[in-house]
Amino acid sequence: MKESNASKIYKAVGAEAVLTEASDLRKYLTGFSTSFGYVLSDKDGNVFYTDSRYLEGAKNALTGTDIAVRQYEAPLENIIKNYKQIAIPLDKTFYPVYEKLKNAGHEIVDSLPAFVSAMAVKGASEKENIKKACEIADKSFVGLLPLIKEGMSENEVAAHLEFLMRTNGASGTSFDTIVAFGENSSVPHHETGDRKLKFGDIVLIDFGCKYNGYCSDCTRTFLFGDDGKHEEFKEVYGRVLTAHMLVKQKATDGMTGLQVDALARDFLKEYGLDKLFTHSLGHGIGINIHEFPFISPKGQDKLKNGMVFSDEPGVYLEGKFGIRIEDTVMLEDGKIISLTDSDKKLLIL
Amino acid sequence: MKESNASKIYKAVGAEAVLTEASDLRKYLTGFSTSFGYVLSDKDGNVFYTDSRYLEGAKNALTGTDIAVRQYEAPLENIIKNYKQIAIPLDKTFYPVYEKLKNAGHEIVDSLPAFVSAMAVKGASEKENIKKACEIADKSFVGLLPLIKEGMSENEVAAHLEFLMRTNGASGTSFDTIVAFGENSSVPHHETGDRKLKFGDIVLIDFGCKYNGYCSDCTRTFLFGDDGKHEEFKEVYGRVLTAHMLVKQKATDGMTGLQVDALARDFLKEYGLDKLFTHSLGHGIGINIHEFPFISPKGQDKLKNGMVFSDEPGVYLEGKFGIRIEDTVMLEDGKIISLTDSDKKLLIL
Repeated sequence: MKESNASKIYKAVGAEAVLTEASDLRKYLTGFSTSFGYVLSDKDGNVFYTDSRYLEGAKNALTGTDIAVRQYEAPLENIIKNYKQIAIPLDKTFYPVYEKLKNAGHEIVDSLPAFVSAMAVKGASEKENIKKACEIADKSFVGLLPLIKEGMSENEVAAHLEFLMRTNGASGTSFDTIVAFGENSSVPHHETGDRKLKFGDIVLIDFGCKYNGYCSDCTRTFLFGDDGKHEEFKEVYGRVLTAHMLVKQKATDGMTGLQVDALARDFLKEYGLDKLFTHSLGHGIGINIHEFPFISPKGQDKLKNGMVFSDEPGVYLEGKFGIRIEDTVMLEDGKIISLTDSDKKLLIL
Repeated sequence: MKESNASKIYKAVGAEAVLTEASDLRKYLTGFSTSFGYVLSDKDGNVFYTDSRYLEGAKNALTGTDIAVRQYEAPLENIIKNYKQIAIPLDKTFYPVYEKLKNAGHEIVDSLPAFVSAMAVKGASEKENIKKACEIADKSFVGLLPLIKEGMSENEVAAHLEFLMRTNGASGTSFDTIVAFGENSSVPHHETGDRKLKFGDIVLIDFGCKYNGYCSDCTRTFLFGDDGKHEEFKEVYGRVLTAHMLVKQKATDGMTGLQVDALARDFLKEYGLDKLFTHSLGHGIGINIHEFPFISPKGQDKLKNGMVFSDEPGVYLEGKFGIRIEDTVMLEDGKIISLTDSDKKLLIL
């Protein structure tokens, strides 16, 4: 029987019992997605408690693993009353749950650091799932381009892309697809709306999908026809792309998030564009679309082989235009591999 | 200037300052969707703090409201240091945030009860958004039916439905669309997969979309052709539909969740089906797909006019078939109005 992540985390935490409710952590422990449940691990093994909606599905999914499935019966206190010490992920535990456990006399230990370390370095099957989510995103973006027509709304373009990701095998999006036309691209997290596409518009699309519960994340910026008014845009596009590629060429394991962020930020600074690069370079990607490690000017942790994160420099001129070029990348053998990798040369549709 | 929900909640809570981080509550307070920010209200007014990604969008969206927009600068302590008393939503506050505020010497008050009461009874614009989300869901389901063909996978059917919802005006789904063929329907929350549609299959589709940040929720169960082997299914379908309709006919304001749940559960009990009705009758619907009120055997709170919730009895025969019939409904003038309302007579495609 293969050792589950539940057993690995139990050993890493080292507490008498490890209790996990947060849905992303539960997915990591069990490999199975649910909106409700608890995983409880102790020296005798792992139990996944869930309700009637998921019981049959969980039993099927976890047969042959070292995780038993039982129906959850409230209150929570009953399943943990025999432990003196309980580990819970403090940053993902709501205050009343903490208070309840504390008042019941348990000694509380924080399990989150063990999760963060373990989840940041992806295992073999996790890499396969993320690669597949990235392949689907790439294939869908390439399939989308010939469908984009003048007069389409941002929402319609998003609908087509999401349909392609779904039919190419994704279970859904990894976040709300962002499609921004023209000046809307200057809002880094624009809310996709009914703006219609015109000749000469900039198009920014930030999208990703899920495969087996794992995310991909990709952004492309391009022109829908060239109306001859985009000299500044083209110049800045080249800078952002160079910043993006510098990260891919120079990032290695052992560098801190700060150092990797600086590869892009320092280059943009040479052209006075760093002040318009208003967010961090990247974030870890896995079960969550934003997770450890964070590649930002504050990132003190060292990057390791097996980590998957985004490389997404962006430059935004308020009310004029925005450019972001993003791939999901992975550190392997000290080098960056690009997992999303559709063409990034400036595209003029 | 129209009074914002931020001002209403501030008055309802009655604390010196009200600090809100949870994204659903922030959306309620501001009407604006973001993945990061804080709303802080005190006697001098309301301020929405967010980061550079959302700053321009937030300023545009909140112009003309009684909510000012400012860039957030960590640490959190700085924006609240002058208050003795701070209200936060305890059930949506992670333990370390609580601990930080407590250790800084603030008196902590729970703001969540005020949110729950206010958000459960929908205002005029909220009703319009939910109605629109329901209309889009209905229209998309009707549009989906002629597209369903033998050999399609559950994922493909979900992709078509989601495309229709998007192009009919939704900003996205309100939860992962569930499409279950055949025996998969007996898992109440089946994970949509690659099972191919065969003649004679039961089809269960649980779906919903978002409009302006508000959700719809609907489930239909039908047959893809009649292979003559579905006598038991047809009989149970009739019972579930009757249970569903009894709720619509008899639920009124002033009844508890328990009493409304019993309208369906007691009817199913007459046929021994209550043991196979393994979940609660319904849940509130709004910014969240699951929110107050909960219509279950434990529901002690009284329903009020203006509340929006699901009416979704279901019966599941493990490994054989499942039937769920769900509409989003609203209490108005003491009666139930069905907001999703596509045909529920047993459909044989």
